[in-house]
Amino acid sequence: MKRQIQEEINQLKAKILHMGGVAEDMIRFSMKCFTERETGAGDRVFRSEEEVNRLQIEVDELACRILALYQPEASDLRAILAAMKINSELERVADQAVNITQTCTYHLFKEVPVKTMMEIPRMAAIAQEMIKNSLDAFSRSDVELAQDVLKKDEEEDTLKSKVLSEVIGMIRRQPSQTNQLVDLILISRNLEKIGDHATNIAEDVIFMVLGKDIRHHAQ
Amino acid sequence: MKRQIQEEINQLKAKILHMGGVAEDMIRFSMKCFTERETGAGDRVFRSEEEVNRLQIEVDELACRILALYQPEASDLRAILAAMKINSELERVADQAVNITQTCTYHLFKEVPVKTMMEIPRMAAIAQEMIKNSLDAFSRSDVELAQDVLKKDEEEDTLKSKVLSEVIGMIRRQPSQTNQLVDLILISRNLEKIGDHATNIAEDVIFMVLGKDIRHHAQ
Repeated sequence: MKRQIQEEINQLKAKILHMGGVAEDMIRFSMKCFTERETGAGDRVFRSEEEVNRLQIEVDELACRILALYQPEASDLRAILAAMKINSELERVADQAVNITQTCTYHLFKEVPVKTMMEIPRMAAIAQEMIKNSLDAFSRSDVELAQDVLKKDEEEDTLKSKVLSEVIGMIRRQPSQTNQLVDLILISRNLEKIGDHATNIAEDVIFMVLGKDIRHHAQ
Repeated sequence: MKRQIQEEINQLKAKILHMGGVAEDMIRFSMKCFTERETGAGDRVFRSEEEVNRLQIEVDELACRILALYQPEASDLRAILAAMKINSELERVADQAVNITQTCTYHLFKEVPVKTMMEIPRMAAIAQEMIKNSLDAFSRSDVELAQDVLKKDEEEDTLKSKVLSEVIGMIRRQPSQTNQLVDLILISRNLEKIGDHATNIAEDVIFMVLGKDIRHHAQ
């Protein structure tokens, strides 16, 4: 019984890690759409979204099955609940990557200065790293790595604020470009959200390992 | 045993409904900040956020307790999992109301035409109604009402697109107002997100009642 449930929990974790890999690729390919306007990359993001949606349902079904079949306790129960929560975060990460890709199909971002252009891929790189590390922390029950993810979020917020004030300056100077410049702000918000989801995953990992809810700095 | 678990599940549901009431109030008071710049309303939103955060942790603790203690199956298990998911949605609703309130403390929105000003509170009213109805559906296990919530989301999306194109036009005409006009777009996004959270709650209710996952139109 104990061995069976461990096998099923490992299967659940493997599904989450696979889903995380797909979500990471989606962030990467959404940036290919942004910097190179590569339509093939866009198609890949949209196809991956379907896979993530399918995985989301599979993870919830498997988690429900394990809960109903084995009635787990303590750390097993926490691992399953963490998997269900991370599942929902990853589906939202995929949504953000889709939003970015959709926005990029409207605009070439040709008129945007290179410096701001580079801050967006920088935000994406940080967000992608946060997702990767939060899932590595999940996979290895690594609290320290999860705490690193929490710290990284500040960097993402700082970049977001920088993009906002720069883009507002640009709009004032060239109001005819308002459409695509506003979209730049929205893309930076999408990336910030991905960072927030990674933060939530990291908090779920800490809860899973320590049995301690650190959200909102609860004691 | 059966009666004990029912009592605990009812307690869990009551906590969720209370949390939903607080979140609804937060949407309402964030709009008071928007339309009347009422600072007292802002303070109330920030105080309520603390309450929602506290309730979020309490709900998860109670749900974990019921799962570990009674090892529920079938509809009881689904009710508890739905409560945990709705819990996380409501916390995010509260975050959106806080974001709106923070944005409103920066700007008076004096220069914005009345028509667009009215679309924002209209979006807020729809979002608030969606949250209310999704929680009524949860409370009464009412699938039909949950489905109404799903339909309502389109209305919210249409209004959001309308605000976006109107505000972009305004920025082009008065680029000196870019700062506060961009914030208007961000507020409309916050309200759209609240509608999305209500949609997620409605889907959780349908899963709870029918045992059928309708997300992403899964069969």
